[in-house]
Amino acid sequence: QMPRGNIETIHHRALVLAQLRKWLDDLKFREAFESMRKLRINLNLVYDHSPRVFLENVEWFLKQIDSVNHINLFLTELKEEDTTKTMYPLPVGKACQPASEAGGGVRKKVDLVCDALRSAMETLDPQKYCLCILTSHVRKTTPELEIALQKVHELRVNPPSAEHAVGAGEALKYLLFLVNVNELYEHSLGTYDFDLVLMVAEKSQKDPKEYLPFLNMLKTLELNYQRYTIDKHLKRFRKALHHLSKCGEEHFTELVNLVKDQRLYSEALQLYPSDSQQHKVLTVAYAEYLLEQQQAEEAGLLLWRCGEMPRALQAFVSCTSWRHALAVATHIPVTQGQLAQLARDLAEKLLEMRRATEAALLLEQYAKDCEEAISALVTGAAWEEALRLIYLYSRQDIIETHLKPALLEAHSMQVAFLESQMALFTRYKSRLAVVLEQKEKTKLLLIDEDGPDCGEAELYSEASSVLTGSRFGSKYSHSNSRISSRSSKNRRKAEGKKHSLKEGSPFEDIALLHALIQIIHVTDKMREEIHSLLRALVLFLFDVRASSLQAKYSELLQLIETSIPEIWHEGLQPGPAPITGPNSTTNSITASLQQPRPPLVSQQDAEILMPPKMRQSIRWELSILK
Amino acid sequence: QMPRGNIETIHHRALVLAQLRKWLDDLKFREAFESMRKLRINLNLVYDHSPRVFLENVEWFLKQIDSVNHINLFLTELKEEDTTKTMYPLPVGKACQPASEAGGGVRKKVDLVCDALRSAMETLDPQKYCLCILTSHVRKTTPELEIALQKVHELRVNPPSAEHAVGAGEALKYLLFLVNVNELYEHSLGTYDFDLVLMVAEKSQKDPKEYLPFLNMLKTLELNYQRYTIDKHLKRFRKALHHLSKCGEEHFTELVNLVKDQRLYSEALQLYPSDSQQHKVLTVAYAEYLLEQQQAEEAGLLLWRCGEMPRALQAFVSCTSWRHALAVATHIPVTQGQLAQLARDLAEKLLEMRRATEAALLLEQYAKDCEEAISALVTGAAWEEALRLIYLYSRQDIIETHLKPALLEAHSMQVAFLESQMALFTRYKSRLAVVLEQKEKTKLLLIDEDGPDCGEAELYSEASSVLTGSRFGSKYSHSNSRISSRSSKNRRKAEGKKHSLKEGSPFEDIALLHALIQIIHVTDKMREEIHSLLRALVLFLFDVRASSLQAKYSELLQLIETSIPEIWHEGLQPGPAPITGPNSTTNSITASLQQPRPPLVSQQDAEILMPPKMRQSIRWELSILK
Repeated sequence: QMPRGNIETIHHRALVLAQLRKWLDDLKFREAFESMRKLRINLNLVYDHSPRVFLENVEWFLKQIDSVNHINLFLTELKEEDTTKTMYPLPVGKACQPASEAGGGVRKKVDLVCDALRSAMETLDPQKYCLCILTSHVRKTTPELEIALQKVHELRVNPPSAEHAVGAGEALKYLLFLVNVNELYEHSLGTYDFDLVLMVAEKSQKDPKEYLPFLNMLKTLELNYQRYTIDKHLKRFRKALHHLSKCGEEHFTELVNLVKDQRLYSEALQLYPSDSQQHKVLTVAYAEYLLEQQQAEEAGLLLWRCGEMPRALQAFVSCTSWRHALAVATHIPVTQGQLAQLARDLAEKLLEMRRATEAALLLEQYAKDCEEAISALVTGAAWEEALRLIYLYSRQDIIETHLKPALLEAHSMQVAFLESQMALFTRYKSRLAVVLEQKEKTKLLLIDEDGPDCGEAELYSEASSVLTGSRFGSKYSHSNSRISSRSSKNRRKAEGKKHSLKEGSPFEDIALLHALIQIIHVTDKMREEIHSLLRALVLFLFDVRASSLQAKYSELLQLIETSIPEIWHEGLQPGPAPITGPNSTTNSITASLQQPRPPLVSQQDAEILMPPKMRQSIRWELSILK
Repeated sequence: QMPRGNIETIHHRALVLAQLRKWLDDLKFREAFESMRKLRINLNLVYDHSPRVFLENVEWFLKQIDSVNHINLFLTELKEEDTTKTMYPLPVGKACQPASEAGGGVRKKVDLVCDALRSAMETLDPQKYCLCILTSHVRKTTPELEIALQKVHELRVNPPSAEHAVGAGEALKYLLFLVNVNELYEHSLGTYDFDLVLMVAEKSQKDPKEYLPFLNMLKTLELNYQRYTIDKHLKRFRKALHHLSKCGEEHFTELVNLVKDQRLYSEALQLYPSDSQQHKVLTVAYAEYLLEQQQAEEAGLLLWRCGEMPRALQAFVSCTSWRHALAVATHIPVTQGQLAQLARDLAEKLLEMRRATEAALLLEQYAKDCEEAISALVTGAAWEEALRLIYLYSRQDIIETHLKPALLEAHSMQVAFLESQMALFTRYKSRLAVVLEQKEKTKLLLIDEDGPDCGEAELYSEASSVLTGSRFGSKYSHSNSRISSRSSKNRRKAEGKKHSLKEGSPFEDIALLHALIQIIHVTDKMREEIHSLLRALVLFLFDVRASSLQAKYSELLQLIETSIPEIWHEGLQPGPAPITGPNSTTNSITASLQQPRPPLVSQQDAEILMPPKMRQSIRWELSILK
């Protein structure tokens, strides 16, 4: 048998809620509150019904309720839940006030209400509302136990004068009722007030044998060290660090260990003047940590500024920060031989990173080896800089022995590369046309069968991808290794896509678009390189080779430029665009700003629908070769 | 009274055309041709009816027509017009063969037919078809008069053996019938055959007093100079150049003048070995021309390679090609003092171009002025390089006198700039939201009034742009001068847009998007600059300033990163995209590839609809400042 009262309550409640809302709208908090208590309606509704109104009338609320117990009850019952949405939704059809209206969208509701009430109570009568104020601290999302304890402590130090006022003992008792005793004990330690700790401990029914020895030990310690010990016990390491730093030289090793354990380097450094020995020790410790974290550059800066030169040098070398490394090395200073060796080591690293010009500077200026420097520049295709050094050091012999052969090799490599790019581009482009045509056909076929409903085009294309999947072999599936070696970053990016260039793979069209974009970017980036090579070839009278290279590159750029509008034709733009004529472009854009907002397309995939941009403003052609 | 025959002809023609098409399809060229001649039907139809079939059966056509006169008639009547489209369209409903079927889409029809017929006639019987072959040359889009004359010339030199064959005289007479006599005379000169010229002149009824003196003068000249004179007379300057180059040293000045007048530099250079004096003179002339054309770099290369060092140096200096300039200067060589002065001049230019590191290299290595070099680096905010030189030359005093003050100034400038960018960005962003909301409202209003037809959304937004135009003042119309100075290129680009940021301007939303993109790009570009400044500040213990700068920049980047998805929400993508769910992104893209193709949106305006990319992978923050 169902308990009879239930149904009654439910019906009753609908009517009661209407009445409550009316009371709350009329700011009749007392009537509302009492009715809610009696009928066990969640007190959160007082706030949730209209957060803004409540927050604006907090004092009026307090005056109407006028009962410490009831206010405590209200505070205790506060929850993050919005009861107007969960438990007591408005009847359908009534306008709902937006939740963000109170302006507290960022702050949490419970914290907001606790702070608002406490602030009002402290203004009205802190003594009277003493327990409520404690509750408001304890109820916060992160309970402010120490502030609460601090208030108890104050009551003990300055007992309230008024007769009916709450004393320290009563307040503590109330706190213990609200909070777990062990937690409160820990936090009482954090006030560093042993009397308060003892008060809490006594009320807690803890065994005095447990806490007395620890407290007695603490009492024997010097004040700062005592506080440090407490902070560490409570895992408040920042505070511990501050107190420990006041304990003098003999505890410095302990401090360094604390800093290392808790990685409080920045905090620790601020506690000592930058010219002190401690600052230096801490800096070195910090730098060692940064080195472990692959932050060698920053480690080097710290070591340098505190005068730890050899360590700084090591740090800078390890991250190929060559300018800083050499500055430090000349600052130390090291011998000429050491400097030369350092320069050679760094140059080798830089060459591996294809930074030939920097490598050459090191070899020239610090290793005093112009031949090696020129060789680095020639290897790195920095033709102009190579020539400058050749003439600076009157080493024209190198032109015949190294520069010209390197130029010719660079020429034939570039020509071969351009040819391969051209072939790949043409192949991908025509394959893309085939794939898209195929899909279009399959789509039309499906539409014919299923009627004219073409609202969910992606279903058809998905189907067609699968349908056309098995028709083609994998003749073109091998990818271009030359590009890969050129831009391994792009390759990795492309691998991440998971769309395969293999013929018939489900998203072959997308993979082809990505491959085409990659070729376009690689080709476009070559302008400066080709320009520099052309000039060098012309200078040494390799006009025929220069012309052929210029023609090849020009042809490829031309192919790409004419292909871009063909590949990225208007149909590639997502959706049947509302653009109706060639003269309405700006209007169309403006119109599109007004469109309803469908879910966002994956950024990365959406990008392939935009035609890539070429840096057409970069001059690279030589007019004398035209 | 209307001539009675007209109407008959029209009716008749429809039937005749059907018959003609049948004959042509059956390759009955003779029947078709004769009927067409009689009924005055345009002979182009023979080809136009089915270009591919005609071209494949050219020999069969010739054999059937079998009349030199008729073939000439056909060739003479050829026009670019497609008569199946203009004069004799197919009856409605009959499938039309695409015009491109013949594969000659690129080449012109008349040229295609002339060449095809001539090739066939030359195979079948060149003597018999002699006049037709001449016609086929003359009828080409660019009449090949010289080839035709050459053939006449050949007939004169080797008269045909066959009895009925056409002789030189008859052929020439026929040519004169086809072509204007003066034109033919000029071209006959081009064969350099004076007998032929006389033949043409005699037939032309020209006054011998006109042409004989010129011809006689020519006959006195040396062969190559004679041909040069003819070529020049006919304005065939390339040929003239070739012939003149064979006329020896005494005519070289004339050649140089010809080259300069006609800008035939490249051609002329190829006529002389690269180590010859002539090559050098021509190169210098070419270089002078290139210098006038603002191609100083290439001029310098040409001058250098032919050994004209001082001129090359001047050219390189004029385009601040400093590496080449210095290479040439040390190659000459110039004195140490001159070299230093050269380096200083170039460094000054480079500093104006904000290329401090290169300027410093010049000052250090060539002017041997380390103090100036360091000063250049400090001014250019190249802190690391400045430090390297300071220690290399043991000039630590500069750290206090120049480096630190410059660092502090750079710091406060960057902070101020970041603050202004932040304020501008926030202002534009919120203004954009207001403008879009306003337009949306106006649009809904208009839709309400006009019914639910919202197919031409751009009309509404245009209207709303105008409607909302007058509501706002011009409080924010002043543009940001700081950005302008930073990236004047962007500013110019923005000005070219013509969309105004002024409140209420018709395309204020687009202008705002452009302005926001500009701020994003400028801010994103600062990563390296800020990173370098932060490191320098930390090195000299300006940790507090470094922290504040890092916080400011981080805040701005954060603001931009969170704003990008807010500004470029999905609604900004053109058109009501057919994307139906967050999990169907790849499918949606694929689907969009299949869309019908509306007219292309202006590339530049379409770009503002794509969220700009930030180089988030560039590390710039110092972890020690966090």
